[in-house]
Order: sequence, then C-alpha cells, then structure tokens
Amino acid sequence: MTDVEALHALVAQLQETVRRLQDQAAIAQLVAAYGPWTDAGWSEAVATLWTEDAVYDADVAVFSGRDAIAAMIDGDTHQAIIHGGSAHVVTAPHISVDRDTAVATCHGLLVRHDGDGFHVARVTAIRFDLVRTGSGWRIANRRNRLLDGNDDARALLRGVSP
Amino acid sequence: MTDVEALHALVAQLQETVRRLQDQAAIAQLVAAYGPWTDAGWSEAVATLWTEDAVYDADVAVFSGRDAIAAMIDGDTHQAIIHGGSAHVVTAPHISVDRDTAVATCHGLLVRHDGDGFHVARVTAIRFDLVRTGSGWRIANRRNRLLDGNDDARALLRGVSP
Amino acid sequence: MTDVEALHALVAQLQETVRRLQDQAAIAQLVAAYGPWTDAGWSEAVATLWTEDAVYDADVAVFSGRDAIAAMIDGDTHQAIIHGGSAHVVTAPHISVDRDTAVATCHGLLVRHDGDGFHVARVTAIRFDLVRTGSGWRIANRRNRLLDGNDDARALLRGVSP
Repeated sequence: MTDVEALHALVAQLQETVRRLQDQAAIAQLVAAYGPWTDAGWSEAVATLWTEDAVYDADVAVFSGRDAIAAMIDGDTHQAIIHGGSAHVVTAPHISVDRDTAVATCHGLLVRHDGDGFHVARVTAIRFDLVRTGSGWRIANRRNRLLDGNDDARALLRGVSP
Repeated sequence: MTDVEALHALVAQLQETVRRLQDQAAIAQLVAAYGPWTDAGWSEAVATLWTEDAVYDADVAVFSGRDAIAAMIDGDTHQAIIHGGSAHVVTAPHISVDRDTAVATCHGLLVRHDGDGFHVARVTAIRFDLVRTGSGWRIANRRNRLLDGNDDARALLRGVSP
Repeated sequence: MTDVEALHALVAQLQETVRRLQDQAAIAQLVAAYGPWTDAGWSEAVATLWTEDAVYDADVAVFSGRDAIAAMIDGDTHQAIIHGGSAHVVTAPHISVDRDTAVATCHGLLVRHDGDGFHVARVTAIRFDLVRTGSGWRIANRRNRLLDGNDDARALLRGVSP
C-alpha cells in the first residue's frame, strides 16, 4: 500500500466515525428541541421534527401525521397548559443508531405552574423511533407511557439491547 | 484533480464537520457545568463560563459582568439556598451555531430541600447567547423567564428558526 | 514537508480531536442509559455500564462490584420503587476526560408516583469516575450525596478544575 492509499484508508475510517458522531448529535438535538418549542407553542417548528406520516402516541391520545401533531400544539388543551405555565422537560436520551434508523429513550416530566408554585403533573417513559431522511433525521414514531408502575412503561424504557 | 488534491478536499470537509461537532459539544458542556458548579457554590469556576462583560438576567435580578455573577454565587441569598439544599437543574439545551455566535435554549428547575423532602421552587425558560472567544466558547448573555404562563417566557424558548 | 506529509499531520490531528469527541459522547451515553434501564428494572443492561469491580456508593447503601449493582436492581427495595412508578432522572453531565480516566458530575432526581400524582422524593449530587477499558468506557465508581445542604454534596459537585 502506498502512502497515499494508506491515507485514503485512514480518512475513510475517520469519515465513518464522524458520521456516527453526527448522527448521535443530530438526534440529541431533535429531542432537545421538542420541549422548548412545545412550551413556546411554536407549532411550525415542532412540526419540522417529524416525518410527514409520523405517529405520536402520547398515551392520553394518539396523533397521526405531522399536521395532527402541529394541530395538537395549536389546540385548546395544549394552549391552556402553556398559558397556565408549563415545562415539558425531555431528558437527555440514550440513543442507539442502526444505519438509517435509531431508537432514543428517556424520561418526560410535565411540570406545571399552579397558584403557589410548581408541581410535577406527569412523568412518562418516552421512546422515539427515528429515521434518516433526505433532509436529516426525523421522528417517525414517539410513544409515551405514564410511569405509574405499569409494565408497558418499563418495557418501553429498554429501548434496544446494549 | 490528483489523488492528493482529492484527499486534501476530503480532509478539509471533514475538518469543517468536526469543528461544528466540537462547537456543539463545547456549548453543551458550558451549559452542563453551570448547575453542578452553582450548587457547589464554586464561584471561581462559574465565572470561567462567561465573557468578562457578560449579562445574566435572572428575572428576579440582573447581574452585569463576570465579577457580579461570581459575587452573586458568593452572596447571602445564593449561599442560603445552597446551604438549605438545592439543585439548579439546567436541561440539555437545543443549540444553534452561526459561525462565532450561538443560541442555546432549555429549561431551568430550581429544586429545593425542605423539612420533609424536596419541592420544585422555580421553573424557568432559559436562553443563552454564546460567543466564540480566543479561549473557547463563553456565555455572553443569559436570560431566564419564569414559566408561569407569561408571553416573554414562551417567546424566549423559540431561540432561532429551525 | 511534502504535500503527503502535511496531509498525514492534518489527519493525525483530526483523529485526536475526533477521539476526544468520541470519549465525551460515549460517556454521555453511559450516563444517559442509567436512568431508563434502572426504571425498566433491566439489571443485565445496567450491569454492562460498570467495570467488574465498580463501587456504587448510593448514600443510603454501598454496592461493591457489578454483580452487587445488578442484584440491587433485582432486589425487593428497587422492585417496589419501580412497580410503584418511578423516574430515576440523571441530568446531562459535565464531563472532564484525562486520557484513560474521566469524571462526570450531574444531578439525580428520583421522582415517584403516589396516589394523586408525582413527587420529587430524592435529589442528589452525583459524581461518576470512569475508565477506558478494552471494550469502551465504563463506570468504575459512582457516588451520590443527598442535596439537603450538607458539605459533602457540594464538594462532590466540583468534579475537577475547569
């Protein structure tokens, strides 16, 4: 192998490593955007996080398609929550990437303002299923399960094998 | 284009990608350091996160300059909070980098110890404006707004367009 | 220096930078995995995060060795907590890497389900000491201290100097 060939091999390896780091960073950023944009009521921005036909199973309701998810943000229930004062905290996820799909698992805390302060209204297990699209990673599926001791929530937090 | 020229182009592209990943990682680390160091009361370390003339608008008060921020950490109010038991939780931020400036948005939770346990005392929307300096990224401006339903807090969480 | 030699130097430098980013990402992922897998009760997966002889000082008890940590997850106390509904929230850590060892500091929140909702049961300062092993980064030592105002918790949050 010539010196230039050896360099080509090194650079190709490095490109692969960097691509994996980019995938992980991009997915972490998608997840980190959800909370702030949701509490901002910024439905157009929230919509960009999902594929066109994404499904968001929020436990209390299921939203099918990016438009339905944006409509949920603009809807009366969500608007009442954010105008009362809320933080949709989504914790830094564990991420497993397998080529063009990925799974991210984490916790969700809905903290709400009330008369005298704040209280933790809901705590959920969250699983994101993501896909690589022509314009980057997008959420194809999200499932929340209330962490009230039920088996589904625990199963969901396993994500994929380490 | 010769083989060596092609390699040069590849490496230059890779350097640019890696620089963006480094920016994002460095900013995430600045934000991740704030909570632990603040609860430790480690004012010298907290000071290193900011530019010399940084402004921290904490909603309840505004601190102008790195020295004023360090003095806040050493001050009676903050010392009473941390000696009573507190966690200044700053969530993993959404980060937008534009060359030498960046915006990071996230949630802040102040959880305090009381007689029988812990309670969520304050929940805020946080926006960091960061700049690249000769010694790395630093916080130039931070703004907190209480998430009690006010418009300012929601506007702040938008950060920059996706 | 020839063109090829210059490229070799550039690529070597890039490799070093990428290695540091990989270290940080790998450690962040170890920490992010702990909460979801612990709330899932997935003891086999939790075990993989630690060295064989890791020590986990959880403040209320000390677990010595990976097997003891897995047994804690399978034990009656932990099973009662997760079957009642819990979120072991571990915040995005501040990470300092020094060649083959690293220190990560963050907050831990144990949020538990009760009759009418959720409450923050425990808030701790967490310090992870990590080592690079033949199969990647692992936790060698973890220490939690309750954030009730005690000096130990504050000292622990300092991690290493910025």
